[in-house]
Amino acid sequence: MSDTTAVERDTDELVRDSQRAALGLANADEAVRNDALRAIADALRDNESAILDANASDVSAAEDLLEEGEYTQALVDRLKLDAAKIEDIAEMVESVAEQDGPLGRTLAARELDEGLDLYRVSVPLGVVATVFESRPDALVQIAALALKSGNAVILKGGSEASESNRILHRVIREATAGIADIPDGWAGLVEAHEEVDRLLELDDQIDLVMPRGSSEFVSYIQDTTQIPVLGHTEGICHVYVDEAADLEMAEDVAFDAKVQYPAVCNAVETLLVNESVAAEFLPGLVERYEDAGVELRGDAAVREIVDVGAATDDDWDTEYGDLELSIAVVDDVFAAVDHVNEHGSKHTESIVTEDLDAAEAFMTGIDAASVFHNASTRFADGYRYGLGAEVGISTGKVHARGPVGLEGLTTYKYYLEGDGHLVASYSGEDALPYTHRELDAEWTPGER
Amino acid sequence: MSDTTAVERDTDELVRDSQRAALGLANADEAVRNDALRAIADALRDNESAILDANASDVSAAEDLLEEGEYTQALVDRLKLDAAKIEDIAEMVESVAEQDGPLGRTLAARELDEGLDLYRVSVPLGVVATVFESRPDALVQIAALALKSGNAVILKGGSEASESNRILHRVIREATAGIADIPDGWAGLVEAHEEVDRLLELDDQIDLVMPRGSSEFVSYIQDTTQIPVLGHTEGICHVYVDEAADLEMAEDVAFDAKVQYPAVCNAVETLLVNESVAAEFLPGLVERYEDAGVELRGDAAVREIVDVGAATDDDWDTEYGDLELSIAVVDDVFAAVDHVNEHGSKHTESIVTEDLDAAEAFMTGIDAASVFHNASTRFADGYRYGLGAEVGISTGKVHARGPVGLEGLTTYKYYLEGDGHLVASYSGEDALPYTHRELDAEWTPGER
Repeated sequence: MSDTTAVERDTDELVRDSQRAALGLANADEAVRNDALRAIADALRDNESAILDANASDVSAAEDLLEEGEYTQALVDRLKLDAAKIEDIAEMVESVAEQDGPLGRTLAARELDEGLDLYRVSVPLGVVATVFESRPDALVQIAALALKSGNAVILKGGSEASESNRILHRVIREATAGIADIPDGWAGLVEAHEEVDRLLELDDQIDLVMPRGSSEFVSYIQDTTQIPVLGHTEGICHVYVDEAADLEMAEDVAFDAKVQYPAVCNAVETLLVNESVAAEFLPGLVERYEDAGVELRGDAAVREIVDVGAATDDDWDTEYGDLELSIAVVDDVFAAVDHVNEHGSKHTESIVTEDLDAAEAFMTGIDAASVFHNASTRFADGYRYGLGAEVGISTGKVHARGPVGLEGLTTYKYYLEGDGHLVASYSGEDALPYTHRELDAEWTPGER
Repeated sequence: MSDTTAVERDTDELVRDSQRAALGLANADEAVRNDALRAIADALRDNESAILDANASDVSAAEDLLEEGEYTQALVDRLKLDAAKIEDIAEMVESVAEQDGPLGRTLAARELDEGLDLYRVSVPLGVVATVFESRPDALVQIAALALKSGNAVILKGGSEASESNRILHRVIREATAGIADIPDGWAGLVEAHEEVDRLLELDDQIDLVMPRGSSEFVSYIQDTTQIPVLGHTEGICHVYVDEAADLEMAEDVAFDAKVQYPAVCNAVETLLVNESVAAEFLPGLVERYEDAGVELRGDAAVREIVDVGAATDDDWDTEYGDLELSIAVVDDVFAAVDHVNEHGSKHTESIVTEDLDAAEAFMTGIDAASVFHNASTRFADGYRYGLGAEVGISTGKVHARGPVGLEGLTTYKYYLEGDGHLVASYSGEDALPYTHRELDAEWTPGER
């Protein structure tokens, strides 16, 4: 009991430090934040051997647990750093510095009355926290994105990477310690589960949580905290091949969406085929899938055409994340829309058709972050969308949806510049009218 | 136990109906939604006497409980409708119809490569719920805003207004029942606490909750649900009178911010005065406040200048919501910023000064939704900001901040229009580059 209280006190103090740092960091110049990012990249290269030593100790401990059957080889692989990976991480930090800054943008400007001008300006959220599993590079990536967007960050990695996380955090902190205007507490590290439990309670003080890890892990965070969560749990994406599809195009899109990289959330899990083209379309595609090692399961109508395993009800709700795919035959585009709205995870959906009415019915009828026409679901990605640095992919609907760039780490403030304006003048009998005229103007501190 | 389960089943079914309705409503034309709003306004007028009868029964029951001391007069006043109020409500619904529609706006358009165009288009959130106390007009207002923005809505009012809510809900539903493309389940009513408890658990199916009521009530909702909440609990707003203030202007702003309407969340609760002008500034303002019946409490430095009550530590964290005000003397603008960041509720803050550097330090240093320069805090309002219909005021930082217009009931979808584009073409050895060229184009369903 007294232990818990001590942990809570420490965590609360860390969060208060983060809040103070956030207020300072919000007003550091763009150029200063970019200098700090480049200093971090240099420090990562300078400390390569110390980072690799710490990482080797994590990897060795993990390999012991691998032998005991507690860890998987995949976890050990994700954990492992080498010189090339450290260089990749350093370059990633430099590329974040190169991005357009997301702060201080005048998003709207409106004259309310003569001499009374309202501006909506982008500002940092404040304090963001990240909780991630295994990959130590996630720590550096989130820290870099937070710094670029003027947010203080609290980092919690997996215990299997504790030595790696500790030294990466130290390198980051020390690299920015000498830089004026970068407040010392901008990046905090927590290590114990009890600290995370406490963090997740502090919804008045932490503005956003970004969990990275398995679907179960993200769900756990979502269900545990009142802090807004940016992330996604599942990607159950569909490709629908319409009656009016160019079938050659459809085959290429369906193949790319599954095979190009099956482990990611924007890969297709269920293929829907219009009944009028199923007999012509399926045999060729199935052969190509099977040559690529894709395990297929179909409904009864599919199995009348091709010799594949039988899909169960569970298949329509399963994210395989692997070379597996379920296939169903549907009556028309509306049946496809219904299937997707029932079984999809609001992530990414694609129709292949030359019929613009069918495309419209599919794209407007489906509730998902991304809906494509004649393109592979694999395009749903911040880099491909041209968002620059990707903060994450969100399947939530508020704040940010789909692939999220640095903008997802910002909010806005309203600045109103007046000349002694009073609301009393705009009320009652002789109320002045508002002009509400849109302005083409940027807010400049203190000017009007 | 079996009772609870029946309620849960009913509630789940209502929410499923709402989800289905939301998918249909999202694609109803703007003109159809506006017709539906005008039909509601007409139906309210046509059913005036039935609405007043139902309301009279609520008021009579509330007056009985008033005599027993369980209800306050203020609650009974808020509950009461009359012919003029029903006309006001009908006009409010018509004014929502007049607003610019928030849906189908192309928020961004970008060519990813030749023939591969990405559009970000505003769409409804889906299912929104509102839980409100007393005022039956809140039911109509939220229903109108939801309909305008293409969202299905679930309405829960206070039990003291159950008869009024029931008939208003029936009038709304019947008015839109005959309109093609407006799905029948778009507005649902729940009445029991157990239903609300169940609703608040359905964070996978309800996209936003808008609570209306006391600060305690909104806090309760925020702490109980994982559904995103749009609302505000407290408005602890400050006016800071700087060393370089035009003191006549400062007096008018400070007076307007408190006295013009003290019961609202954007009224000032604490006045901060720079020590170098306090002796000159305070006596005149205090006299004016006291003439207007404002009860004042000051810190030690204030009480050396004027004869007011002593402020305790609690005063700096109190939203009076009445003709009461606390006053503190501060050393400089930075001390004012620190005070506001410690005690404010991130709602609305104002500095009065002719010094642009001080204005900048205050406006960029404070973490609040609205920060003003030489203007009354009372301007923080959706109507005054020119947002049209106001959905609410949010002191949260994600999704929407400050006064929120219809845009706060929307999210966006990415539409990608391709011509059989595959991610494989943009990967590996001969990867094609992305063009990432901003387009000046609107998404038109199915076209490219």
